[in-house]
Amino acid sequence: VVKAARAGKHIFCEKPIDHSLEKIDRALDAVEKAGVKLQVGFNRRFDANFERVRRSIATGEIGTPHLLHIVSRDPGPPPISYIRVSGGMFLDMTIHDFDMARFLMQDEVTEVYTSASVRVDPEIGAAGDVDTAVIMLRFAGGAIGTIDNCRQAPYGYDQRVEVLGSLGSVETENRYPNRAVISTAESVRRDLPLNFFMERYSDSFTSELRAFVDAVLQDKPAPVSGIDGRIPVVMALAAKKSYEEGRPVRLAEIGERETRVEAVTR
Amino acid sequence: VVKAARAGKHIFCEKPIDHSLEKIDRALDAVEKAGVKLQVGFNRRFDANFERVRRSIATGEIGTPHLLHIVSRDPGPPPISYIRVSGGMFLDMTIHDFDMARFLMQDEVTEVYTSASVRVDPEIGAAGDVDTAVIMLRFAGGAIGTIDNCRQAPYGYDQRVEVLGSLGSVETENRYPNRAVISTAESVRRDLPLNFFMERYSDSFTSELRAFVDAVLQDKPAPVSGIDGRIPVVMALAAKKSYEEGRPVRLAEIGERETRVEAVTR
Amino acid sequence: VVKAARAGKHIFCEKPIDHSLEKIDRALDAVEKAGVKLQVGFNRRFDANFERVRRSIATGEIGTPHLLHIVSRDPGPPPISYIRVSGGMFLDMTIHDFDMARFLMQDEVTEVYTSASVRVDPEIGAAGDVDTAVIMLRFAGGAIGTIDNCRQAPYGYDQRVEVLGSLGSVETENRYPNRAVISTAESVRRDLPLNFFMERYSDSFTSELRAFVDAVLQDKPAPVSGIDGRIPVVMALAAKKSYEEGRPVRLAEIGERETRVEAVTR
Amino acid sequence: VVKAARAGKHIFCEKPIDHSLEKIDRALDAVEKAGVKLQVGFNRRFDANFERVRRSIATGEIGTPHLLHIVSRDPGPPPISYIRVSGGMFLDMTIHDFDMARFLMQDEVTEVYTSASVRVDPEIGAAGDVDTAVIMLRFAGGAIGTIDNCRQAPYGYDQRVEVLGSLGSVETENRYPNRAVISTAESVRRDLPLNFFMERYSDSFTSELRAFVDAVLQDKPAPVSGIDGRIPVVMALAAKKSYEEGRPVRLAEIGERETRVEAVTR
Repeated sequence: VVKAARAGKHIFCEKPIDHSLEKIDRALDAVEKAGVKLQVGFNRRFDANFERVRRSIATGEIGTPHLLHIVSRDPGPPPISYIRVSGGMFLDMTIHDFDMARFLMQDEVTEVYTSASVRVDPEIGAAGDVDTAVIMLRFAGGAIGTIDNCRQAPYGYDQRVEVLGSLGSVETENRYPNRAVISTAESVRRDLPLNFFMERYSDSFTSELRAFVDAVLQDKPAPVSGIDGRIPVVMALAAKKSYEEGRPVRLAEIGERETRVEAVTR
Repeated sequence: VVKAARAGKHIFCEKPIDHSLEKIDRALDAVEKAGVKLQVGFNRRFDANFERVRRSIATGEIGTPHLLHIVSRDPGPPPISYIRVSGGMFLDMTIHDFDMARFLMQDEVTEVYTSASVRVDPEIGAAGDVDTAVIMLRFAGGAIGTIDNCRQAPYGYDQRVEVLGSLGSVETENRYPNRAVISTAESVRRDLPLNFFMERYSDSFTSELRAFVDAVLQDKPAPVSGIDGRIPVVMALAAKKSYEEGRPVRLAEIGERETRVEAVTR
Repeated sequence: VVKAARAGKHIFCEKPIDHSLEKIDRALDAVEKAGVKLQVGFNRRFDANFERVRRSIATGEIGTPHLLHIVSRDPGPPPISYIRVSGGMFLDMTIHDFDMARFLMQDEVTEVYTSASVRVDPEIGAAGDVDTAVIMLRFAGGAIGTIDNCRQAPYGYDQRVEVLGSLGSVETENRYPNRAVISTAESVRRDLPLNFFMERYSDSFTSELRAFVDAVLQDKPAPVSGIDGRIPVVMALAAKKSYEEGRPVRLAEIGERETRVEAVTR
Repeated sequence: VVKAARAGKHIFCEKPIDHSLEKIDRALDAVEKAGVKLQVGFNRRFDANFERVRRSIATGEIGTPHLLHIVSRDPGPPPISYIRVSGGMFLDMTIHDFDMARFLMQDEVTEVYTSASVRVDPEIGAAGDVDTAVIMLRFAGGAIGTIDNCRQAPYGYDQRVEVLGSLGSVETENRYPNRAVISTAESVRRDLPLNFFMERYSDSFTSELRAFVDAVLQDKPAPVSGIDGRIPVVMALAAKKSYEEGRPVRLAEIGERETRVEAVTR
């Protein structure tokens, strides 16, 4: 990021920008100084389901949001070699859900509390990581959120959200390769959901890159900013600290920077 | 029915009243002469799903109905000994669907066309009956209906309807013992629907008897009248004739009597 | 088609090839003589839902098919000027469903019976066409099918199929822009299904053209042959005749040619 | 309970037995001394959905459970006068969910963490209570649970659970008065779920009383024991303490007694 910014290039950067807030801040400073655009790869913001949920809150369709529940489970764990360099589940996997929480609720999280375990593979524990966790979020506006993570959902990739508001609720279902239901003497069944992110989020990957190109061509702000890339890292570090110390942790303990939820202008 | 009417008793009579229109007319005359109440056992009118469909038409929620589709399949065929005395599938099984068509559409059928086969068990064919059929209905008001019948649905009792109207459509799902969905590495599945009429329609059996008792105690018209019992027999005879002669058959060919759709006053 | 064949070009031709069987036969003869490939634009064969239904039959998952029900309704009628040159609803709209019936059941239709009305717009009737119809199909193997057509489904494009077989059933749902469910004090609701063929079948249009290109590049048979293009026209002409004469019509009355269901080799 | 036990009567007692553990223990001691049966009114154990979820765990269908999520929301808050004497949301409302957590997971909770707010009505806050909460549960076996509570779900009574296990997941849907889906130009919608506990749990109320009568008549253990009535009160007191002190609270801090999950023997 720093090199590209100095070269005057607009930047699309995958998440997380870095595991270190210091390095992230240096990168964001370089971007600001160079006046280039930086978009962070939180592709799930461009998924039609999650856009619809955000819209139901943004338009007041479900009123003031009170409770958020994010289910985010992978079909299976990555290799242990990857686990070791991943920064841990919170920085590697939950980071998408931290961003999703902010994106949907259009509010900032002030405190997190983590309960986590090694349930899927003891090797993951031996590598110093966890594979199953629930992270509770407290939002500035008083709403409460939960993120339900597991490295292994035997039926495939499980990506759903649900929000309860003062006027109603909204919930999303997984995406499937087809909508056929087969009924036999054994069961009423359907095929498994789309297996992993390349299938499930193929549309959103296209849309996020189109949005980046649009931002560059039309000189608009990138729809997922550098600050949007930094805050989930703060949340992940707080979630990790909460897990290690067995207590709720305020984000202010980790280090805040001026935050603002950027509107996705599409 | 004739004996009970002469004895001055109010009558609850299972469907069909008889396989012979002459006998039905003698029964209805006896009822009329005695001034007693007669309710015919078309229990499905009291099912919450079908009541809701009727209401969506009665209130104009889906506008003028254009197309009706009734799926009515048993989990498995009855014994051949029963088939032989049943009067045939149209009088024994489809008779409920003929009543349902009138009940939902609040209109009379003027013509039917039947396509039928022996698909489930050759013994049924040997007994002179069919086990699989589609009956097309033409309503006085111009709407078109189809009834989809089979003596064997391996997943259990299949009882659904769907109506397309000028403003929208309504469709119903089967009823299940529970609403649990189980997702494993093989499939996303649920338990089979309620297996047969005793489970599926237990609520409606209670409601139809309560309605009969109410009609007697409060001296109101019975909600399913003798004419409501006669017309489906006419439809069944026409459906059988259509199957035998391979052509559409008008109900007027079978013998009509003044008909009127009785409102279910509940 | 004739000109392209004579020029030695491989041909992708939209449906129907023509409204006249004579012209179709001249086209098919030219294609055969030139030894070029001809693929007819029945794109729905490439839809993931319908492919899954076909697979459930091809693999024996639901056993021998007994009953087929195709729902095919447009969101709204085309302009009257188009209706006048369309060849009528059976050749213009139902033609896709005639092909779908063959594709799914992997069997040929021998007889059709049509019930049709003008329900949506009297102008369509004045133009000599119908806008609402049910067409009953009789398959060579003894199965029975129904096609449920309407030029207007107020909720959008309605494209579903359902098959009952000896071991079970398969049914498909419409496709939606998202899977969000919104619950408020009024209802539990979701957004409308994808509105029309450009949205609903966008994936299948891509797949059918890829299949055509593959057939040409790898010198394989085109997955939807000229015969596959001809037979639905025969079915449409029979459906029209059935409607006009109020009786079941055998396809042999219209004119048959050697038929064979081509496997979609993908 | 004490008086009835002394009088030698078998006892069916609504939940919670009391808000004070001392009084509960006196009651349980009186029951034990008298040798009478005591069944506590956790009726939801007798609901077909939740029985199915328990079964999916008991039979190993979804493997070892890792994550539990309970959604339990009332259609609207009770009068403030009731709130004042209710013992607070955790003892009044969540108590059912504490029991459900034990019943489903067949394991004991060792620690809870509560995040709660006043979101629905400031009067509830003025009365010293909360109306919206998430309670995180830590099970002895390492699984993690969340209970999602709100005194107001505008669409009606929301009662669902979801469990992820090592081999799959199970989730339940709400129960509805009918299964009709209405599609119009505005939306694809259905009627609201059954509004409150009298409708939603009518079957389970019948079943729990039948089970009590069976236990008495056949001299079997009552399916929901006195200990089953005591433990959720411990959980509620721990949840309240967690909320007041902003930290996870172990149940051992509140006071434990020998615990054992009683099998529902039906």
